[in-house]
Amino acid sequence: MLIVQKYGGTSVGSLERIRAVAERVARTVKAGNKVAVVVSAMSGETDRLIGLAHQISQRPEDREMDLLLSSGERVSAALTALAIRELGVEAKSFTGRQCGIITDSAHTRAKIEKITGQRLRETLENGCVAVIAGFQGITEETDDVTTLGRGGSDLTAVAIAAAVNADLCEIYTDVEGVYTSDPNIVPSARKLEKISYEEMLELASLGAKVLQTRSVEFAKKYSVPLVVKSSFNDAPGTYIVKEDEDMEKVLVSGVTSDKNQCKLTVLGVPDKPGIAGKLFSDIANAGFVVDMIVQNVSSDKKTTDISFTIPRTDSARAIEMTRKMAAELGARGVDHNDSISKVSVVGVGMRTHSGVAARMFETLAKHNINIIMISTSEIKVSCVIDNMYTELAVRALHEAFGLDKAA
Amino acid sequence: MLIVQKYGGTSVGSLERIRAVAERVARTVKAGNKVAVVVSAMSGETDRLIGLAHQISQRPEDREMDLLLSSGERVSAALTALAIRELGVEAKSFTGRQCGIITDSAHTRAKIEKITGQRLRETLENGCVAVIAGFQGITEETDDVTTLGRGGSDLTAVAIAAAVNADLCEIYTDVEGVYTSDPNIVPSARKLEKISYEEMLELASLGAKVLQTRSVEFAKKYSVPLVVKSSFNDAPGTYIVKEDEDMEKVLVSGVTSDKNQCKLTVLGVPDKPGIAGKLFSDIANAGFVVDMIVQNVSSDKKTTDISFTIPRTDSARAIEMTRKMAAELGARGVDHNDSISKVSVVGVGMRTHSGVAARMFETLAKHNINIIMISTSEIKVSCVIDNMYTELAVRALHEAFGLDKAA
Repeated sequence: MLIVQKYGGTSVGSLERIRAVAERVARTVKAGNKVAVVVSAMSGETDRLIGLAHQISQRPEDREMDLLLSSGERVSAALTALAIRELGVEAKSFTGRQCGIITDSAHTRAKIEKITGQRLRETLENGCVAVIAGFQGITEETDDVTTLGRGGSDLTAVAIAAAVNADLCEIYTDVEGVYTSDPNIVPSARKLEKISYEEMLELASLGAKVLQTRSVEFAKKYSVPLVVKSSFNDAPGTYIVKEDEDMEKVLVSGVTSDKNQCKLTVLGVPDKPGIAGKLFSDIANAGFVVDMIVQNVSSDKKTTDISFTIPRTDSARAIEMTRKMAAELGARGVDHNDSISKVSVVGVGMRTHSGVAARMFETLAKHNINIIMISTSEIKVSCVIDNMYTELAVRALHEAFGLDKAA
Repeated sequence: MLIVQKYGGTSVGSLERIRAVAERVARTVKAGNKVAVVVSAMSGETDRLIGLAHQISQRPEDREMDLLLSSGERVSAALTALAIRELGVEAKSFTGRQCGIITDSAHTRAKIEKITGQRLRETLENGCVAVIAGFQGITEETDDVTTLGRGGSDLTAVAIAAAVNADLCEIYTDVEGVYTSDPNIVPSARKLEKISYEEMLELASLGAKVLQTRSVEFAKKYSVPLVVKSSFNDAPGTYIVKEDEDMEKVLVSGVTSDKNQCKLTVLGVPDKPGIAGKLFSDIANAGFVVDMIVQNVSSDKKTTDISFTIPRTDSARAIEMTRKMAAELGARGVDHNDSISKVSVVGVGMRTHSGVAARMFETLAKHNINIIMISTSEIKVSCVIDNMYTELAVRALHEAFGLDKAA
């Protein structure tokens, strides 16, 4: 098999851990596989470099940040290649550029445009392990170093797996796989044996920190079979694959929560066509990522209240901007609430089974938890609630959908 | 003027020092100059990375070492660019590759083959400061990262200065310039106002640690005017330029010593043509850099003793190899002496003045210092002596040639 293995920061966090990675790679090679290894920076290194930059500049320029941060992965790639060679297995390091990872020029959050990895393919075909510095690429036009955003090494791994047509992409991390819920909140949470790309996408974007969202999208697009497993033991992990019949039998696969949102409400907006469109295009142009939107027609039928949620880190800037816009639109004012959280249930089984939303609302009601906003997709139901009830809601939903019982 | 400024590891050794560098660069720009800045890794960083590699492998592979070590300069280039921008001066970082520094593929000690720095030239022409990661380049064929050996950032600076046709290349370091001798040995040593490339070459290769030898050769070849000065104050420094009439009036410019040599003697070599040639070509092929060679015909006129010096770090390996060769050549044996040192006087004035060697020998004799070997060049006389007399010899010669008096 041709396997891509990705090791995160804690998995290469010390020389001892790097040696353990090398041993796993060597075992995989000796079992007859061809292996490409993608590594993150040693844990703490990226934060150290960011800290240095912020001591110099409050708003360090993105292009310089990319050159700065990309060095962390280069160091771990070189060290990991050395450690693998030390075990008598041929290995060579590759930078993002040497893999031919071409991105757009959106520094610090670049998107991969293509991978021209001829040399990488040749290396793998010759039976040599390729150790790849994750998280980075270069622009085609200017030849500048770019980075792919936090968690970007996941994306590197998946993109490389697609480019070399790998049989499997293994994501090694410090947890054993994907769970039905956060085990820190729900002690009875179970590790899932497998899960669909769609479900993983919802879970990733809803706050489960196992895999970067974009990497799952990429894996889905190119049908790259993924498995998430621990670099600290040999437990089997969770496979992320195409939806199958087994999966559809399960109503809900996971329950998640996200406390990093805040809610803004524009009060008394004149109820005229085009107003909401104007509001949200201005908000998007200002760079805010809106998650949920709810609009209520007010009792007088002439004005309406529009609520939306955005990441809490943007809160201060967004309030300021929304107040200005509210004045322009002739609205009454702006309200905001930072103490909310979003709880969600996810499962492809919802497509063929009804009643999931109803059971969710009933469960929350039974515990006297008020629902502030609701949003749904084909395989997800989310409710915004007061954040003091977050853990209670997650535990209650986990039980209500039978997730604590073995499948 | 178009100026290249190079800052060594101690000059960018902390964020405070990087800010000081940025201020100097900004001042230089505001005085109407175009500036390219070459930086080394923050002091200690290269050694830290080497330490990590050596904990993984006793003999880490050169290609991986180059990727590993090159990251240190990238970090300081990005941080320095950020610090300059913070002062309102436009600045951009460049890697070796982005400057178009093409080297041969001799990893860890690569030679610059050419610089195709079109983008660098454009950046400078637009009045933007280019901050260049020193010490590194890439190979043309394989696109691999290479490094230029210890002190390689000096070479980067000089090569960039030649490529962009700079008016001046300023080497900022932690000393104020080039001295008539090591001030730690000779308290009355004076800073030289200017010195010729040739003299600097002799001083650099004889153990004065101010500038890397290859960078001086490069500066001489392309007539790049150099100045060595301190990044810690505004003292004027030492100019390294083409020889002029003033310089020829000075008999001796400096006295140096080198304790890092050892002497090997092959005893009783048959006195036949071709033997010395065979001996030294074998030694060169084994990678040893021979400095001085002396051959004495023995009293019986049938055999000869051949002595040579090599860097002390190669001592053990060289003794083993020379013993084997001595046996093959029918020589009597091999003697070695690790407790030697070389003292030298350097000056372009020797070309037009005689008596320098004689005054040197007399001075050493007056202090009862025995001369073990002698070698001379057009502008240098070196004597190997017992290393217990090193400091005494340097001080005596410094005085004898009147170097402690103002020029």
